[in-house]
Amino acid sequence: MGVVLNLEGGKRETRSIRKLIDLTAADMGRVNELILSKAGSDVELIPEIANHLISSGGKRLRPMVTLAAAQMFGYSGDGHVRLATSVEFMHTATLLHDDVVDESDLRRGRKTARMIWGNQASVLVGDFLLGQAFRMMVDVGSLDALDILSAAACVIAEGEVMQLAAAKNLETTEDEYFSVIKAKTAALFSAAAEVGPVIANATKTDRAALRSYGMNLGLAFQLVDDALDYGGSSSELGKNVGDDFREGKVTLPVILSYRRGSAEERKFWTAAIEENVTDDTALERAIGLMGRHGSIADTIGRARHFGEIARDALAPLRATPQKTALLEVIDFCISRVS
Amino acid sequence: MGVVLNLEGGKRETRSIRKLIDLTAADMGRVNELILSKAGSDVELIPEIANHLISSGGKRLRPMVTLAAAQMFGYSGDGHVRLATSVEFMHTATLLHDDVVDESDLRRGRKTARMIWGNQASVLVGDFLLGQAFRMMVDVGSLDALDILSAAACVIAEGEVMQLAAAKNLETTEDEYFSVIKAKTAALFSAAAEVGPVIANATKTDRAALRSYGMNLGLAFQLVDDALDYGGSSSELGKNVGDDFREGKVTLPVILSYRRGSAEERKFWTAAIEENVTDDTALERAIGLMGRHGSIADTIGRARHFGEIARDALAPLRATPQKTALLEVIDFCISRVS
Repeated sequence: MGVVLNLEGGKRETRSIRKLIDLTAADMGRVNELILSKAGSDVELIPEIANHLISSGGKRLRPMVTLAAAQMFGYSGDGHVRLATSVEFMHTATLLHDDVVDESDLRRGRKTARMIWGNQASVLVGDFLLGQAFRMMVDVGSLDALDILSAAACVIAEGEVMQLAAAKNLETTEDEYFSVIKAKTAALFSAAAEVGPVIANATKTDRAALRSYGMNLGLAFQLVDDALDYGGSSSELGKNVGDDFREGKVTLPVILSYRRGSAEERKFWTAAIEENVTDDTALERAIGLMGRHGSIADTIGRARHFGEIARDALAPLRATPQKTALLEVIDFCISRVS
Repeated sequence: MGVVLNLEGGKRETRSIRKLIDLTAADMGRVNELILSKAGSDVELIPEIANHLISSGGKRLRPMVTLAAAQMFGYSGDGHVRLATSVEFMHTATLLHDDVVDESDLRRGRKTARMIWGNQASVLVGDFLLGQAFRMMVDVGSLDALDILSAAACVIAEGEVMQLAAAKNLETTEDEYFSVIKAKTAALFSAAAEVGPVIANATKTDRAALRSYGMNLGLAFQLVDDALDYGGSSSELGKNVGDDFREGKVTLPVILSYRRGSAEERKFWTAAIEENVTDDTALERAIGLMGRHGSIADTIGRARHFGEIARDALAPLRATPQKTALLEVIDFCISRVS
């Protein structure tokens, strides 16, 4: 079922976030300690569920971006560690609630919390982690950082509701799709990046640069994620190829294929997305149609577009190891599909 | 099915929160405007669901407490309006998530949001309102108020998880029950009261007084609520008598009846709470057993105990109309059952 995706553009790109990992290793050690301590509670179910998700091997890309963005502007305190942890908790809380909303069974190759402990506990532990995220931000004491992250929390929820309202609607436009991913995914990347310069008391221009970097990186990230769902292998992805398809999600590869398809093909998409005809044969046909219409390649093309904007957002900043590392993250996100 | 509850103590108490309503009327007008504006979103489903809950006629006791507590210490800005709105949004978000967790069909006599729009939308709109609550707090700019309210958000979620973990467990002790209601209900009342003096820059002693008032008022409030479930009429309560019973909730009237009951009675409680034998005959028997063992009267007795502590918490404060109004709230909460 795997499909080899040919990237357009041809040039070999960095496939690693090694630099980012190295630069943030010491700080991430403290983030990981803080994650464990702040996921603690006398109410046993809370650390149990939180640790299930926390230990399941996400890359922790968002907190690393926060740390690097703070280092980049010479920040020397420890507020960035707490902000990075807040960002990761916001992300974790979103995942817990998402899995309930999407009725997902697997996340990063493991059973979702809701499959083990039920929807109810997932909702409530998500609320707890979100509360802890806010407590840590308050603890840091930067009203600007609080403003950015609390606004992101609203926007993320709005994006999720938007996605829910558009669910299974094949008439979703590409613009509507972008509104959803901008809100549900890119807003947190953007906030994660911007709070770095904010806590380092950098200039407005620097804040705007990192905000734009994060926003466009997030868009590229989600586009690639949506492409991977029709082309990665289960072990790489930590989810199964075709998860989005089986859940009837109208992502860009589907939108493009539907819009570019014949009347007969549209009937196929309607049966698949609206009437849940999503067995392996249907998935194979979906991937075939995506190949025919270039839907995956063009989804990656869109990702490249946003990747370029993210790159240019950082262009005016002076050369630092952090800048190099953040630029590599863009290539890493996009090259995941090659 | 209604049971007339005889209050111990005998003396006739104030049954009204008229003074509180009058004192906060102007500010509450602004709170209500802010509620409508902050529940707005371009994503249509959000105001639709938020307004369903907001218009369903809760008393708005918590925001009124915040407003009166700020007025009491001479606060003259407009931050208290935003904090009061935040408090109400936190409460509303909790209700949305609670109804999902409890699988409730009715709330204040109307269909719950989850029955109309589904669990998924209820979870996400709850997240949105919580995010908006934090944004408004950030907007006010008081790190102390943020600290208090974000800590409350965590404690509330912890309380809900605790309640979930103890669900249908008849061996729950009275102390465990108090831990749950302290976290899930009293913590928000406490925070709502404390942020008043905080924003008015009152002394630590004044903060502690209002915090204690709110905590104990909240405990009394929840105890009475749990008693009412076995004795109010549906129209007064906005929910049906016996809702908790049918949901298998182990509230204090049940805990006391179970502990004080014969072996045969305990079998009845086990069948009811653990095996869902909760038809009208069972409910009638439950109420009968509560009468025999004085479980409702003693639940009210416990509420009176906390009411007294709340009253004494305010005792050292100088006489103001706000103080009188807040004292009346205690009597109002307790006299709901008489």
